[in-house]
Amino acid sequence: MSRVVKLAVIPGDGIGPEVVAEAVKVLDAVTAESDVTFDKSAFSLGAGRYLETGDTLTDDDLAAIAAHDAILLGAVGGVPGDPRLKDANIERGLLLKLRFELDHYVNLRPSKHYPGATGPLADPGDIDFVVVREGTEGPYVGNGGAIRRGTPHEVANETSVNTAYGVERVVRYAFALAARRRHKLTLVHKTNVLVHAGGMWKRIVDAVASEYPGVDVDYLHVDAATIFLVTNPGRFDVIVTDNLFGDILTDLAGAVTGGIGLAASGNINPDGAFPSMFEPVHGSAPDIAGTQKADPTAAILSVALLLDHLGLVDEAARVTRAVEDDIASRDGARTTAQIGDAIAERVQA
Amino acid sequence: MSRVVKLAVIPGDGIGPEVVAEAVKVLDAVTAESDVTFDKSAFSLGAGRYLETGDTLTDDDLAAIAAHDAILLGAVGGVPGDPRLKDANIERGLLLKLRFELDHYVNLRPSKHYPGATGPLADPGDIDFVVVREGTEGPYVGNGGAIRRGTPHEVANETSVNTAYGVERVVRYAFALAARRRHKLTLVHKTNVLVHAGGMWKRIVDAVASEYPGVDVDYLHVDAATIFLVTNPGRFDVIVTDNLFGDILTDLAGAVTGGIGLAASGNINPDGAFPSMFEPVHGSAPDIAGTQKADPTAAILSVALLLDHLGLVDEAARVTRAVEDDIASRDGARTTAQIGDAIAERVQA
Ligand SMILES: CC(C)[C@H](C(=O)O)[C@@H](O)C(=O)O
Ligand SMILES: CC(C)[C@H](C(=O)O)[C@@H](O)C(=O)O
Repeated sequence: MSRVVKLAVIPGDGIGPEVVAEAVKVLDAVTAESDVTFDKSAFSLGAGRYLETGDTLTDDDLAAIAAHDAILLGAVGGVPGDPRLKDANIERGLLLKLRFELDHYVNLRPSKHYPGATGPLADPGDIDFVVVREGTEGPYVGNGGAIRRGTPHEVANETSVNTAYGVERVVRYAFALAARRRHKLTLVHKTNVLVHAGGMWKRIVDAVASEYPGVDVDYLHVDAATIFLVTNPGRFDVIVTDNLFGDILTDLAGAVTGGIGLAASGNINPDGAFPSMFEPVHGSAPDIAGTQKADPTAAILSVALLLDHLGLVDEAARVTRAVEDDIASRDGARTTAQIGDAIAERVQA
Repeated sequence: MSRVVKLAVIPGDGIGPEVVAEAVKVLDAVTAESDVTFDKSAFSLGAGRYLETGDTLTDDDLAAIAAHDAILLGAVGGVPGDPRLKDANIERGLLLKLRFELDHYVNLRPSKHYPGATGPLADPGDIDFVVVREGTEGPYVGNGGAIRRGTPHEVANETSVNTAYGVERVVRYAFALAARRRHKLTLVHKTNVLVHAGGMWKRIVDAVASEYPGVDVDYLHVDAATIFLVTNPGRFDVIVTDNLFGDILTDLAGAVTGGIGLAASGNINPDGAFPSMFEPVHGSAPDIAGTQKADPTAAILSVALLLDHLGLVDEAARVTRAVEDDIASRDGARTTAQIGDAIAERVQA
């Protein structure tokens, strides 16, 4: 019985199209002989589209994307400081809008140190953890505002909104994941300062913990968590945290495990009401766009997350293994396409 | 002409008293032959005091402390999870209250890699930067709240409050500092998500920059800043940032430069309307309290910041040099007091 997966592909800006091309290459290779077909439709979205048409994400775009089974995104964002983008906010209007509208409440970001990957730590040790970052609440909700803008009396506020509904569902996801992994869950927040939001997160984690007696739970303030990420990252298994802290911790985790060129992510709607979206953690890096210098590995590992999410666990494992082998045998510079080719070959071997 | 400095000393909890004892030892040593006398009064504040009396910081305490010229603080906070502290928030009620009431709008946190200090990075390079963390605004203001607390319908909000007045003064301080250092200032925020607060910070930095044509200005999102802190910390000179981002970046910076046992800080009211307060960045570490295992170096370097703030620049430089020499010659474990003795001897040599 053959299965067709409708995949929306958003290459985006900068290095986005280059890394997505390799990710698709690997996806095609790993499914070449299987009974799953990916029916892909490309969406032209990002700074490029904005500059052409003035649109960031129209209702029609959103409806069309939502009609797919999953989304693969490269990277979006124009050249920093481009005066034509002064009034655009591609990040909010496109990336965050997709995450919010498609209710991607789990932002899943695995961090693994692959043998051969070189990072800044003298002794990285065994690093293998997953950050479960909340994706639809917190300081990201856009509930801010300013009065007396541009005057010496300006007041600019940002409100972090957190709901028991929103926190509980992501906390449950994190516990279920920890129960399938090494049975350790770390809540990261700043409960001593953000007493209302932090207090609620803590209470909900404690409540759900009682249903998972086999999972060890600990708590770290976000500042202390950054210390452990560089001094003892091996202590972590599953980290659950809010939208902003998760953003910060996962960039740091990416750097620590060998660079943001390897960090993959899934924006997941576990309920399946909306398509989930898979993307490298890195940005559009317009400075190296078109030079074939970008590492497509993060995009390719995002394909592994996508396959896993679709239940294609064997295919996912083959992609991950191919990436591992590729990293272990790296020496010398290769182009974006050469890395993609090498990994695509390995998945077929 | 002799000068008397009234110094309020708050040893606090856990390792606080131990490290403060050494800091005072070094302060006494470096001023032994000068014409400055430190007239010290100890204040018993922290979790210990709360458990005895139920008070965190009374109006009388605050008034008495405010009548001093400066404050030296060790660390405050009880044993995590102590049920008797369930309703206490020593951090908010004492530490943050002092910072807010005494208008410590500059939270000054230098990061330097001293030769001999061992950190997690394979190649730390030359690290010498200062984080100017805003100290009286942002998500720290305590403007949060919750409705339907403890129910499945709870909503818990936290509001970050930012004013042009508050941002401009700390930004001006940071530019003046950069102009006396290596002429480089990096604003760290999250302007693409926190558009109102971040937008105001950016506009104010750009406006003040025009008065400092000799200072190079750049901007990083907080997530990207954590990457650079581990991959290229040498790129930073002065970082200016908000209260929460500064909290996170300085713990990470402490870890990167050789451990939070070396990280000093000043909570400064540059206008002189209130006494400034100097403290190590580390916490009270109740697990090692009383064991003489704590490194008093961060507290001692906080004394250097205190001396510098009081205009005693030679004394400050002697303390810093003594610490540098001590770190360069470290080998084998020493007690808290042994480290203090060694540095006190060096400042007198
Ligand atoms: C581009 C930006 C809005 C985004 C975020 O902050 O979530 C990015 O940093 C990420 O981590 O995916
Ligand atoms: C104890 C806590 C409230 C404090 C802060 O967040 O400012 C501490 O982490 C610090 O950095 O001085």
